[in-house]
Amino acid sequence: MADIIYLNGDWITSEDAKVSVFDRGFLFADGVYEVIPVYQRRPFLLELHIQRLQRSAEAIGITFIEANYWYQLVDELIDRNNYDNGLVYIQLTFGADSQRSHLPTQPLSPTIYASMSSLHVHWDTPIPVKVAVLEDIRWQRCDIKSISLLGNIMLKREAAKLGAFEPLLHRHGRITEGASCNYFMVKNGHLYTPPADHLILAGITRTWVIQLAKSLAIEVHEEPMNVNELQHVDEVFLTSSSREVQPVGQIDDIIVGNGQCGAITAQIAEAFHASKRHLIQE
Amino acid sequence: MADIIYLNGDWITSEDAKVSVFDRGFLFADGVYEVIPVYQRRPFLLELHIQRLQRSAEAIGITFIEANYWYQLVDELIDRNNYDNGLVYIQLTFGADSQRSHLPTQPLSPTIYASMSSLHVHWDTPIPVKVAVLEDIRWQRCDIKSISLLGNIMLKREAAKLGAFEPLLHRHGRITEGASCNYFMVKNGHLYTPPADHLILAGITRTWVIQLAKSLAIEVHEEPMNVNELQHVDEVFLTSSSREVQPVGQIDDIIVGNGQCGAITAQIAEAFHASKRHLIQE
Repeated sequence: MADIIYLNGDWITSEDAKVSVFDRGFLFADGVYEVIPVYQRRPFLLELHIQRLQRSAEAIGITFIEANYWYQLVDELIDRNNYDNGLVYIQLTFGADSQRSHLPTQPLSPTIYASMSSLHVHWDTPIPVKVAVLEDIRWQRCDIKSISLLGNIMLKREAAKLGAFEPLLHRHGRITEGASCNYFMVKNGHLYTPPADHLILAGITRTWVIQLAKSLAIEVHEEPMNVNELQHVDEVFLTSSSREVQPVGQIDDIIVGNGQCGAITAQIAEAFHASKRHLIQE
Repeated sequence: MADIIYLNGDWITSEDAKVSVFDRGFLFADGVYEVIPVYQRRPFLLELHIQRLQRSAEAIGITFIEANYWYQLVDELIDRNNYDNGLVYIQLTFGADSQRSHLPTQPLSPTIYASMSSLHVHWDTPIPVKVAVLEDIRWQRCDIKSISLLGNIMLKREAAKLGAFEPLLHRHGRITEGASCNYFMVKNGHLYTPPADHLILAGITRTWVIQLAKSLAIEVHEEPMNVNELQHVDEVFLTSSSREVQPVGQIDDIIVGNGQCGAITAQIAEAFHASKRHLIQE
């Protein structure tokens, strides 16, 4: 069965899913998005994703859209597609103008696009990956989940060239995040992650992992960290909606711990799996 | 007559000019562009624009396209449209994938889109505008003319809210450029403009103005400037392919000179008009 895509009120196939070249998303990256995991046809932490979508949209000046609109859209998208486990992608742009102009030439209706793809769900802790330390060249508003992603893409490509799964970014030595994930470090049994300021995206999985850690009585510190400190940490993992809790075994040429998934990472990953199980069995 | 648009080998109308929602330009802003002025059906400084397009494309990993391809495309676009004076817009993205993935899932062909719009050509020096000093929040690779423009758009909107024509951006006090233009300052008969490093786009009009100034025996300094120095300059103007040489009469609440177009700005604007006349009469 072909994927069914939502575009501006229509349910269509991939071949028909086209937007005007005058869409401000295509010309100016004037748009925002969300990626929502679906386990056994149930969206995970949907409210948090929709709240963030609204925050991102408002930050770039797109008019508020009722949360119920999104809930119904996601439900129908899951119904119309054939994935038990998947990723729902939602993109919202400022809309299509009649010509290219930095400031819109007329009032515009947002372009709303949503689709679904398959997701491999982890039930065991995944094999640790290697990451590459790179300088964060992106803009100062990484807290907005925008489609203005060329910086992320270039950094992801550079990391891939170095044989790494993801970049581990820093600004003048201060750790920020990955190209599409957040980072957590474990030291002496405590969990550390950079604070949710304008330089990182406050990941939904990040938020969830912080809550899980607290419920496991693991102390969590949201504070700035320097790349130099990476040499002295016991465990590192990254989080994202698609990768969930992903152990990091190597940073550039440095092996983290013994290169295997650490005990606290495994504990948090297990708690994460449990929350997925809980959703499915609700 | 409706505009004729070029898209991936086809010549079509605006309504038919649509790209896949899986185009990496729409999903990731993974693309670059150029805007080329056309005077009396002749493109102005076309070679410089195409050279920059190639540089931008290569910087983000798009395969080189023969310069002649672009020259023929621009010629045919001008032929097929009905503008004596216009702006040619060219956009080149990494291409459309079969799904959304930060790294392409397969080898892709670039998406090539080009269109033309009308241009008001200045033959007299335009009325001075007001600009607003704002912090530059954009990424560290502003030398790439990419479509990852949300930062520029947000800054342009913020300037507009302040009643300004353009932002005048700075990083920690150091002047960079506008959201869609370069800046020049005149002091004691000398011309100053920020250097063409990674923090600004090396504008074609900027390059041309520097050459014109030198031919007028005006000394040009490409060097870092602080926003504090703006209080002590005699003249300010901005340059872009669509605005050409645009005097600035006010920066925030500060009137520049007497608020009118200064003598050196007028001299450079006149030289610029002369080079357009020269092109037309070639």
